[in-house]
Amino acid sequence: MPVPRPNDRLGEVYAEWAVEMGRYPDMSIELLRIVFDDWQRVTAEPEGVTYRETEFGGVPGILVSPLESDPHQVLVLLHGGGFALGSSRSHRKLAGHLARATGATAFVADFRLAPEHKFPAAVEDGVAVVRALREAGHPVDDVTLVGDSAGGNLAIATVLKLRELGEPLPTQVITLSPWLDMENSGSTIETNDATDFLIAREGLQANIDRYIEGVTSPTDPLANPLYADFTGFPRLYIAAADTESLYADSVRLYERATAAGVDVTLSVGHGMQHVFPFLAGRHPRADEEVRLIADWYRAGR
Amino acid sequence: MPVPRPNDRLGEVYAEWAVEMGRYPDMSIELLRIVFDDWQRVTAEPEGVTYRETEFGGVPGILVSPLESDPHQVLVLLHGGGFALGSSRSHRKLAGHLARATGATAFVADFRLAPEHKFPAAVEDGVAVVRALREAGHPVDDVTLVGDSAGGNLAIATVLKLRELGEPLPTQVITLSPWLDMENSGSTIETNDATDFLIAREGLQANIDRYIEGVTSPTDPLANPLYADFTGFPRLYIAAADTESLYADSVRLYERATAAGVDVTLSVGHGMQHVFPFLAGRHPRADEEVRLIADWYRAGR
Repeated sequence: MPVPRPNDRLGEVYAEWAVEMGRYPDMSIELLRIVFDDWQRVTAEPEGVTYRETEFGGVPGILVSPLESDPHQVLVLLHGGGFALGSSRSHRKLAGHLARATGATAFVADFRLAPEHKFPAAVEDGVAVVRALREAGHPVDDVTLVGDSAGGNLAIATVLKLRELGEPLPTQVITLSPWLDMENSGSTIETNDATDFLIAREGLQANIDRYIEGVTSPTDPLANPLYADFTGFPRLYIAAADTESLYADSVRLYERATAAGVDVTLSVGHGMQHVFPFLAGRHPRADEEVRLIADWYRAGR
Repeated sequence: MPVPRPNDRLGEVYAEWAVEMGRYPDMSIELLRIVFDDWQRVTAEPEGVTYRETEFGGVPGILVSPLESDPHQVLVLLHGGGFALGSSRSHRKLAGHLARATGATAFVADFRLAPEHKFPAAVEDGVAVVRALREAGHPVDDVTLVGDSAGGNLAIATVLKLRELGEPLPTQVITLSPWLDMENSGSTIETNDATDFLIAREGLQANIDRYIEGVTSPTDPLANPLYADFTGFPRLYIAAADTESLYADSVRLYERATAAGVDVTLSVGHGMQHVFPFLAGRHPRADEEVRLIADWYRAGR
């Protein structure tokens, strides 16, 4: 069987990172963060969008405002990067594409990162942002949580935590290649290993350890939403690639949410990479996904 | 004497890069480029600015457009990074601050980089951009060349090359901590070594080799404008820090240009780092410098 090779810019960038992380297996967390900020290189500059540094509930981040948007509607983007990497810088352009397509403003939150801040700091920051938006005049009906990879985990966990606290829940949640399984047991980690140019079991485990080791169990539903009760969960959108290592997380999330009666949509990017909407403006399937997300978003409002 | 420590975010980021480059002295050019794209982390998001990927004369880049600006006036920003590193990504926000302050649109050019493209590829790209802007209805009176570090060299060399070709010259050039001396002989490389957290002689020589080794002499005026004839050169602005390793380049440029009768301004940031305007939005001296540049810009129009 031929060895798969990257066939899009995202795969090329992941493969380049993998080479560097392989050359320097002891790469510092500081350098890893610089490398993952490079995610933004994949995405085309969204046009007609302005940016402003701000904070909600003490959580800093970037407000991403299309020139033509409804300032009441807010996407809260919880970024990927294994709870330890990624930032408002890596996800600024992705947020811009999603904001433009949905007609909302986006807030890309720089929640506290592991290992300096372990679970549940990031979940608490997600809750703090939603609460601060509510106090700033954005009722939860106007707030949609969006998260990719580890940020998909955080988007779900933020809703679960709000429910636990008895606070109003956002009515929509969008996840892109969510990473949920803190037991590191997904079947596609093996079966899609050759076609996923970023993610492998060892890297996942390193991030699991940074996030929860010594503070909670890998089956804590707020750390691993595959163990959560999804009864009464908001409308849920899942985009994932059938060739990515974490595909099994999306499939299991879809199954659990469906079984609990949630209005859930799974959109599969055939042959794509982890968080393929990063290719917005550069790949037709990513652009299609942004349109599908926007259609789904508007249908629920 | 106490060892100097970073006293601003730019110094901190440079010191962090220096640690990583020291840990991995064989860092690949790909990883170095990722590290230098991190320059953007230093700069606050400029507000009220939109971005668009485009090209002029076959040179790709980002058009940076303040919501309130004169679309006729264009800053062509030739970025730093030793001719080999840096990009429209590292300099997007800096360009946004300069564009807002001057009321112009900025084009951050992704000129061809060394070592894949040695001298004079980048200079040819600078010429191609100015020419394409002229053909697109931006006469040279509306075009200001801006360059930091190696980009300051390229901004000057672009004018020298246009003069050699007998083409009309932009009437203003702005350089920030320009790097000119391809003989690597500036006195402040030694005397400011302790207070400059990024630049040291070895790194400079590596970039000199990438740029000109085997293709031209370190005294070629188009590669080393300290050897150029500045007679008839446009109005020239130089911003530099008196504590940076390349300060001697700015001083010598100022002296040569003054001796040739050029209208030249040298603005000194006391105790600052290399290309301190990167701190725009985060440090009063950087914000002051952006205002000084804008005042100078408008006075010449």
